[in-house]
Amino acid sequence: MNAPDRFTAMLAATCEPLPASSKVYTTGSQPDIRVPLREIALSNGENIALYDTSGPYTDPAASIDVRQGLAAMRAPWIAARGDTEPYAGRIADARDDGSRDEASLARLRELSAGLQRTPRRARGGVNVTQMHYARRGIITPEMEYVALRENGKREWMREYLGDAEREARLAGNALGFAMAREITPEMVRDEVARGRAVIPANINHPELEPMAIGRAFKVKINANIGNSAVTSGIEEEVEKLVWSTRWGADTVMDLSTGRHIHTTRDWIVRNSPVPIGTVPIYQALEKVGGIAEDLSWEIFRDTLIEQAEQGVDYFTIHAGLRLAYVPLTARRRTGIVSRGGSILAKWCISHHRENFLYTHFEDICDIMKAYDVTFSLGDGLRPGSLSDANDAAQFAELRTLGELTQVAWKHDVQTLIEGPGHVPMHMIQANMDEQLATCAEAPFYTLGPLTIDVSPGYDHIASGIGAAMIGWMGTSMLCYVTPKEHLGLPDRDDVKQGLIAYRIAAHAADVAKGHPGARAHDDAMSRARFEFRWEDQFALALDPDTARAYHDATLPAEGAKTAHFCSMCGPKFCSMKITQEVRDYAATLGVSDEEALARGMEGESQRYEDAGRQLYIPIEKA
Amino acid sequence: MNAPDRFTAMLAATCEPLPASSKVYTTGSQPDIRVPLREIALSNGENIALYDTSGPYTDPAASIDVRQGLAAMRAPWIAARGDTEPYAGRIADARDDGSRDEASLARLRELSAGLQRTPRRARGGVNVTQMHYARRGIITPEMEYVALRENGKREWMREYLGDAEREARLAGNALGFAMAREITPEMVRDEVARGRAVIPANINHPELEPMAIGRAFKVKINANIGNSAVTSGIEEEVEKLVWSTRWGADTVMDLSTGRHIHTTRDWIVRNSPVPIGTVPIYQALEKVGGIAEDLSWEIFRDTLIEQAEQGVDYFTIHAGLRLAYVPLTARRRTGIVSRGGSILAKWCISHHRENFLYTHFEDICDIMKAYDVTFSLGDGLRPGSLSDANDAAQFAELRTLGELTQVAWKHDVQTLIEGPGHVPMHMIQANMDEQLATCAEAPFYTLGPLTIDVSPGYDHIASGIGAAMIGWMGTSMLCYVTPKEHLGLPDRDDVKQGLIAYRIAAHAADVAKGHPGARAHDDAMSRARFEFRWEDQFALALDPDTARAYHDATLPAEGAKTAHFCSMCGPKFCSMKITQEVRDYAATLGVSDEEALARGMEGESQRYEDAGRQLYIPIEKA
Repeated sequence: MNAPDRFTAMLAATCEPLPASSKVYTTGSQPDIRVPLREIALSNGENIALYDTSGPYTDPAASIDVRQGLAAMRAPWIAARGDTEPYAGRIADARDDGSRDEASLARLRELSAGLQRTPRRARGGVNVTQMHYARRGIITPEMEYVALRENGKREWMREYLGDAEREARLAGNALGFAMAREITPEMVRDEVARGRAVIPANINHPELEPMAIGRAFKVKINANIGNSAVTSGIEEEVEKLVWSTRWGADTVMDLSTGRHIHTTRDWIVRNSPVPIGTVPIYQALEKVGGIAEDLSWEIFRDTLIEQAEQGVDYFTIHAGLRLAYVPLTARRRTGIVSRGGSILAKWCISHHRENFLYTHFEDICDIMKAYDVTFSLGDGLRPGSLSDANDAAQFAELRTLGELTQVAWKHDVQTLIEGPGHVPMHMIQANMDEQLATCAEAPFYTLGPLTIDVSPGYDHIASGIGAAMIGWMGTSMLCYVTPKEHLGLPDRDDVKQGLIAYRIAAHAADVAKGHPGARAHDDAMSRARFEFRWEDQFALALDPDTARAYHDATLPAEGAKTAHFCSMCGPKFCSMKITQEVRDYAATLGVSDEEALARGMEGESQRYEDAGRQLYIPIEKA
Repeated sequence: MNAPDRFTAMLAATCEPLPASSKVYTTGSQPDIRVPLREIALSNGENIALYDTSGPYTDPAASIDVRQGLAAMRAPWIAARGDTEPYAGRIADARDDGSRDEASLARLRELSAGLQRTPRRARGGVNVTQMHYARRGIITPEMEYVALRENGKREWMREYLGDAEREARLAGNALGFAMAREITPEMVRDEVARGRAVIPANINHPELEPMAIGRAFKVKINANIGNSAVTSGIEEEVEKLVWSTRWGADTVMDLSTGRHIHTTRDWIVRNSPVPIGTVPIYQALEKVGGIAEDLSWEIFRDTLIEQAEQGVDYFTIHAGLRLAYVPLTARRRTGIVSRGGSILAKWCISHHRENFLYTHFEDICDIMKAYDVTFSLGDGLRPGSLSDANDAAQFAELRTLGELTQVAWKHDVQTLIEGPGHVPMHMIQANMDEQLATCAEAPFYTLGPLTIDVSPGYDHIASGIGAAMIGWMGTSMLCYVTPKEHLGLPDRDDVKQGLIAYRIAAHAADVAKGHPGARAHDDAMSRARFEFRWEDQFALALDPDTARAYHDATLPAEGAKTAHFCSMCGPKFCSMKITQEVRDYAATLGVSDEEALARGMEGESQRYEDAGRQLYIPIEKA
C-alpha cells in the first residue's frame, strides 16, 4: 500500500465502534440539538451510556469524507443569532505554509479544495462570544448541548447510585466547591457568565460538538498533535485527530511547526468534532524565518486572524510573561522550558521592550470576540523541574494572568489559565489556591503536573499522579503527557498511552470531587467483575482492547470468557466465589440486616455444613 | 537452549550493572557493616550514589552460585548476640511440597541440597526480635546498617540541596510527622522501639541486607512473585527475584501456591538480599487439599514453624477478620476480595467459630519472637471496589488490627498493618487517619489503593495515584500492582512496569514528605536535562533502558546523545537553549541579584544585540 492508502485503511479501522458499543443521541429542546453518547450493551441486558468524545467517526450511520469535512451542525445556530456575516477573509499567503515551493503548495491546495469555507465574523463590532450571550441571560443551543452532555443518561445510573448508606459514605468532596447533582442549561449559562467555565466554539468551526471546560463539569483532557516533518496527506493528519478523540481527548491542540502548517490546520479543523487549540506564536515565528527578534505585533495579529478565520477554538497567548519577570528565571535549575515562553523572553530581552502580547492585549480581545476564540493564557514561565516549582517567576506571571483575565472578561472573552509543569505533591494545593485566588476562578488548564523529575519514559505516570490531584482540587482540563515526554516525539501508541493515563486521572478526579455521573461507571465495572462477566468488563474498560489482550494472554480459550473464575486464583480457589457463598449463607439465615446477621449466626454453621460445603460451581473446561 | 540454560543466561543478563553504575559500599562501625549503594559516574565528573535494592547480583566482584545461596552476611551478628541456638528443626514432610510424586520430590531435594541450613531459634524462651533489642536500648548492627542505608551519601547531595531560598520553598510537608534531616542509628533504634518502624530480619535469613519500613524512612515497595504451575528450576525462580530487586523491590512476597511450594521457598530465601514475606495460610490450605474448612490451628502452627525455619522475614496473618465481621460483607458490591480473607471467612462461617488466628494470636507471637518474624496483619476485608471503600467491614477489621498490634507489641514482636485496596482519592486521608489512630502509628503497608475501578490493563497507574498520595500521608510500604491486575498473571515485563510505577509513587511521596535524601536525585536529573547530557539522563532515570530506547526511537544517531537539542523542538528552535541565553545575558549585566537585574535591564538590549543574536551553538551533524 502506498502511504495515503495506508492511512485511509488506518482511518477506517480507527472509526470502528468500540466493543459492544453503539452511538445513541439525546435530543434537546430543538431537533438539531442531538447529543452523542456511547451506549454499551452488557450481557445482562443493561445499557450503560458514557460521555463520548469520538464524534461522528464511531457512528456507522455517519458518512465521512475527510476531503469535504464534517457536517456543519452548528451553522443554523450561528446563523439564527443573526450577529455574524460572511466576508472575503484574509488573502492566503504562501508564507502561511512556510514554503516557497509553488508546485508542492499547489498540490496541497488542490487536496484541500473541498475544505475551503467562506469565513464569518461578528457584524460591525458586536460581540459573539458564548460569555457575552450568557451575561445577557441567553441560553444558547451550545449551552443546552453541554448540559445534556454533562448530565448523561441518568436512568442506568440509578441502578448503581441508589443505596443511601453508600451514597453518604462515598459522597464526593470538592474541597469547598459546591457540585450540582443535576446539570441544567441555566446552570451552564451561569458558569459561563461568571467565567468559571468556557465553551470553546469559534463561529468558524461549526462542525464542533460543543463541550464545556469548568470546575462544575467533568474534568477534561487535551491531547497535543502536530504535523510530521513531511506530511503524507489529509488522511494521516485526520487519523491522528480521530485516534486521539477515540481514546478520550476532549480537545486537541495542533502544535504543528514548520511547513504546510496552514493547510494542515484546514485538514484538522474541518474534520474535528472537538475544539482545536493552537499556539499562534509558533506560526508567527515560522513567518519570520525562526528569528524570534523579528516577530512583530503586525505579523502576530495577521496570524491570529488567519487562524480565527480557519476556525481555531482557543489560542494559547503568553501575554503574562512580562519583561521584568525574565531575569527571575536566571537562577532557575531549568530556566524557561515553555517554547512559547522562551520565544517571547528572547524577543523581550533582545528589544528590551515589554512583551507585545501584553501591550496589545486589548487588541487581541477585539479579535477574540469577533470570532469567539477562547483565551488560553499561557504559562511561559512554568517550572521545568521540581526545583523551580512555585517560584517567584511562576507566581509573578500567574498574577499577571489574573490581571489579564479581568481585561478579557471586560470584553466578555472566554478565558482559560494554563498551569504547570513540574510540582511536587505537597506543593500542588498551593498552586491551585494561588490560581483560584489570583484568577477569580477562571478555569485552570494544567500540564500534569509531574510530581518527580527522574522518570523519563514514564512521565505519563509521574504526571498522572499530579494531574489527578490537581483535577480533584479544581483544575478543569488536563493537558496530557505521553511516555515520550522529555525524550522524543510520541507515536500512535504513545498518544494512546498518554490519553488513557489522563482519563484515569480525570476520572479519579471526577469521582473525588463528586461529579454526579462519574462513579456509576465504576460500579457497573465492579458488578461485572464480581459476576465474572468478562466481556462486559472489557467493554466497560477505558481501553477494551488492552483489557481483553491481557486477559487472553493468560486464559486465551473462549470458554474462559464465561468462566466463573479468573487466572489470579484459578478454578480451584476463588475469593470472589467464596464471597458469593458468604452471601448465600447470609440469605439462608433469613435476615437482611447486617446487625441481625451478626447476632443471628449462632448455631447456623451446621445448616451450612448440611448444604454440602460446595465451594466451586462446576465450570466448563476452559 | 533448554529451559534451565535459558534461565541461567537470563539471570546472567539480569545481573549486569545498570548503565554507568558501579557498586560501592559505605562501612559502619565494624568492618562487616558494609552498606551497598549504586554509584553513577556522570559525564561531568559528578558521582551520584543512590539507594540500592539489587543486592550482590549487580556487583561484578561478588561470586554468585544460586545452588549455594548468598553469603550469610548477618551470621556473625546473630551469633555474637549469643541468644540463639541451632537445632534439628522440624522433620520435612512430602506434604510441604504438595506432592506425592516421590521421584520428582527427590529431584527437587537434590537440586536444593546446597541450600539446606540448620535452623536456629531463640535459646529457651528468650526474645530475639529487633524490637526487643531496641526497647532494651541496644543498637544492633542491623539498625546501624539501616541508618547508613537511609542516609545515603550526603556529599554529592550538598551540591544540589544548598540554596536557602529553594530549600525553604521546597521543604517537605509530612503532614504532622517530623522528618529528621539526618538518620542516625539511635534514631532507627528509637523508631523500632516505639513500633513506628520494623526491620524484617528473620535470624534464619542471614543473607539479608537489612532495611527498615517506617514513616521516618524512605517509602518502600513490595513486589509479589509466585511459582508457576510447573517450576523449571532454581534459576527461573531466582531470576524473578533478581529481576524484581533490580527494578527496586525493597521486599518480595512469595505468593506461591500449589506444588513445590516448600522447595521454591528455599530457593528464594537463600538467594534473596531483600526480606521475603509470605501468606502462610496459602500453604496450610494446600496441606489440607484446598478445603478451607479442614484447616486447623495445628496445621497452621506447623506451617509457621516450617517457614520460620526457612527464614521468611514477615508473615501476613489475617487475624483481624473476626467471625462477627463476615456478615458485614454480605451487601458489599464486591464482597471479600482478599484470598486469605476469604479462606478464613469460609472457615469461620462453616464452623461458626471465631477465627483461629485471632484466638491463637499469642501463640503466634511466641513463634514470631523465637525467630524474629515480623507480623504483617492482613486486611482480609479490604474493599475490592470504590463502592466498598471505608465501610463498616473494613474499619471493624482495622480496629481489631489495632488491638492485635498492642498484643504483638506486648511480646516485642514487630508489626506492619496491611491496608486497601480500592479507595477514591477523597477517602484516602480518612483511611490513613483511621490507621494511625487505631494502630498507634504501626507502619502501614497498602495495596495501591486504586482510585478508580474502570482501568483494567492500567491499574498500575490507577493505583499508583493512590499509592503516591497515601505514601505522602504516612504509609511506609506500598505493595505494587501490575498492569495485569484483575486480568491475568503478570509476566516479566508486567513486573517491571508495576515496579517502575511504584517507584514513581514512592519517590513522589518521599519528595513530598521531605525525606532528606530524596530530591537531590531529581535535581541531578534536571541539571543533566538542562545541560543536554543525554547519557547522564539515561543513567539517572528510574529505567535507563526505556529512556534510552525512547530517545533513540526519534534520534537514533550516536551524535544526538551529545547534541545540544532534543527531538521535541529540534535543532532550529530549543527553549532550553534560549534560557541559557537569558542566563548569559543576565551575566553580562554584571549583577547577580534578581531585583537588581530587573531594574538594571534598561538600555542593555543593544549590548545583547551586539553580541550577535546567536541562538544556537553549532552542533555536530546528528
